[in-house]
Amino acid sequence: MPFLFFSAGGSAEILVALAIVLFSAKLLGEIFERIKQPAVVGEILAGVIIGPSALALINPEFLGSGHLIPILAEIGVVFLLFNVGLETKPQAILAVGGRAFIVAVLGVIVPFVAGFLIALAWDGSKIEAMFIGAALVATSVGITARVLGGMGLLDAPTARIILGAAVIDDILGLLILSVVSGMGKGNVDYVGLAELAGMASVFTIVVAVLGAIVMGRVARFIGKMKIGNPVFNLGIILCLGLSFAASYVGVAAIIGAFLAGMALSEATEHDRKTHTLTSGITEFLVPFFLVNIGMQLDVTLFQEWSVIVLALVITGAAVLTKYIGCSIASYGLGWRRASQVGVGMIPRGEVGIVVAQIGFGMGIIEPRFFASVLFMAIATTLIAPPLIKILFSSEPAAHGNVDSDDAGGIVVGGDDLHHIG
Amino acid sequence: MPFLFFSAGGSAEILVALAIVLFSAKLLGEIFERIKQPAVVGEILAGVIIGPSALALINPEFLGSGHLIPILAEIGVVFLLFNVGLETKPQAILAVGGRAFIVAVLGVIVPFVAGFLIALAWDGSKIEAMFIGAALVATSVGITARVLGGMGLLDAPTARIILGAAVIDDILGLLILSVVSGMGKGNVDYVGLAELAGMASVFTIVVAVLGAIVMGRVARFIGKMKIGNPVFNLGIILCLGLSFAASYVGVAAIIGAFLAGMALSEATEHDRKTHTLTSGITEFLVPFFLVNIGMQLDVTLFQEWSVIVLALVITGAAVLTKYIGCSIASYGLGWRRASQVGVGMIPRGEVGIVVAQIGFGMGIIEPRFFASVLFMAIATTLIAPPLIKILFSSEPAAHGNVDSDDAGGIVVGGDDLHHIG
Repeated sequence: MPFLFFSAGGSAEILVALAIVLFSAKLLGEIFERIKQPAVVGEILAGVIIGPSALALINPEFLGSGHLIPILAEIGVVFLLFNVGLETKPQAILAVGGRAFIVAVLGVIVPFVAGFLIALAWDGSKIEAMFIGAALVATSVGITARVLGGMGLLDAPTARIILGAAVIDDILGLLILSVVSGMGKGNVDYVGLAELAGMASVFTIVVAVLGAIVMGRVARFIGKMKIGNPVFNLGIILCLGLSFAASYVGVAAIIGAFLAGMALSEATEHDRKTHTLTSGITEFLVPFFLVNIGMQLDVTLFQEWSVIVLALVITGAAVLTKYIGCSIASYGLGWRRASQVGVGMIPRGEVGIVVAQIGFGMGIIEPRFFASVLFMAIATTLIAPPLIKILFSSEPAAHGNVDSDDAGGIVVGGDDLHHIG
Repeated sequence: MPFLFFSAGGSAEILVALAIVLFSAKLLGEIFERIKQPAVVGEILAGVIIGPSALALINPEFLGSGHLIPILAEIGVVFLLFNVGLETKPQAILAVGGRAFIVAVLGVIVPFVAGFLIALAWDGSKIEAMFIGAALVATSVGITARVLGGMGLLDAPTARIILGAAVIDDILGLLILSVVSGMGKGNVDYVGLAELAGMASVFTIVVAVLGAIVMGRVARFIGKMKIGNPVFNLGIILCLGLSFAASYVGVAAIIGAFLAGMALSEATEHDRKTHTLTSGITEFLVPFFLVNIGMQLDVTLFQEWSVIVLALVITGAAVLTKYIGCSIASYGLGWRRASQVGVGMIPRGEVGIVVAQIGFGMGIIEPRFFASVLFMAIATTLIAPPLIKILFSSEPAAHGNVDSDDAGGIVVGGDDLHHIG
């Protein structure tokens, strides 16, 4: 009975909306795989096609902020980073910490300056220009992690630098956005800012360093529980709890999820069941994350040529400056590896979209800049994956203790840490 | 950054709400396992405790019909039945079809008459009494499937009768509710009713009989696709698609999900990866289904003794009449097996709640009857699992080709079909 469902009314429509998202994502993912392109690009384009800009197949009621598809998208990227964390040992990230820090810093400064100058050149106000700069800063590590996971390369030395740099990049982006938002409101609270920086850094460092030690003990204890799959259940609760804690102290939820995964990476190293169960959730939800990015594209914003030109300029600058900043910071690793790091940091995805929405919501940035940043955020997620695929294609996939398609393409190998710092 | 999340605002709160639901469900599940009671009872009670009646830990905004927790609950029970279907071969159900039909029919008639007479005795109107009867009819097979799955007994001969009877019970319940709703509105459309009966029956029979044949071929083709885990992705899209189709023709979404699982059960028989990935989704979402049932309890409805007495009478009748009707229909299987079928059909769960909500929403049933049916729906889900556990405890668990805790407790064995009809 249609009414034999808790929420009479829209519930059957919800099921068909979920089916449409998954079907279109997988269909375009398959087409892109067949033309030797990354599946994620197809999945994001599926969002453009079924979204409001083209076929408008999904009830708009499910698309608004705080509604079903965006919520599943959020939970999806949280689980994606949790899964990546599960395959990443804390030492592997800490070992490249110094290098990751430099990559993050240069990868923040160069795009910020470029965005600032472009907006000024296009007659934006100073505060508007700072917002555009802030929007160009943020890296969305989910896209890169998904592509590298699919290639079995999360364990590659440059993949670790990218992951570590993305965490630091997020904290720096948080601080810049706080400063810029404060200036937009007319006052910057430097004490609050210092607190924010302190809390975010302490949270990240403490969880990264102590998480694995604590969870190693907890997991042994939890493993003796009587309910089914206790370690898996511990994992998802820890993932959600640390994602919340991260948001609470000010960093992105996905950073908390990544740290939760890392904290359990050693305890679950030989527990393939827990990894596969978790992958089931991730594989189910990640298409919502990717499709939702594509669905943010609003073609009605691009009715004037001048806006299209501005969008292309900002996108070009976003790609080049992140690549240049991060690859200069990778000096000494050789051209190929420096380029790997550079392209891995390019996608802005949901992070760029949210910064633009904040500036637009505060009435600080004009529609043409909002449209251009939105375009940049989506375009960078489409441009980066093929570049990542080309530049990483010569890396040996680390098919250590897992079969090649386990964990839905997230494949990680043994313990051969490559210390690059 | 808290804002580095699509929906600024409530999103971090969503993560903590999910964590609270899962943590409380698993904690009480563990406590119940330790006192040798079914974990599902603990998980439902967790909902009572964290719900509006007691601690009120969850933002009510996430609890309303059509909102986050109820939606996850719905998707959870859909995936639960999909998982059960994956472990059930169509022939196993068709072989017990005749017996399942008689169980369903008697299990519908006896509770309906009892509910009707009780409501009349309590001075309800005739149409009100018919609604109470209808609310006592519907079986929620999810609870029973979860308990039997946890015991590794989905393959037991009586488990198959219960699953088959639950499908038929749902169609009969649909027809009764349609008649009663029509009478409530003042006219019963007998032509529409015949169409409804025809569509629901044809859909169910066609998908049950042809689904596996079609999917056997499709899965072979899909298995050659290049995206990761193609059969798993086919499965979840089919699950959501057939759940929608079932709702569309008038039967419960979970019937569609169960048929989708059955259609793929042969094609995925030796594909443990697909089963485990699917179990990951189910294990993540089922606690929301169970906790959400408990959260429906509204203690403010029980401020008068007369309502409490009525609730207890209706609950007693619901338990006894379903047990009597279904076990009489199982005549010839012996006392123990007849009782297994009888108790397996007792839980009314979400189905009873929704029927009560429809009657209440139409202004047909009074608050005291609404409260009593709500209580009955929750109480039957709490009473049945321990009885199921006792009556099935002497059955040999069919630990065929899977390890004992695979698929999150859903364990199924080989091909030894027991033909009981």
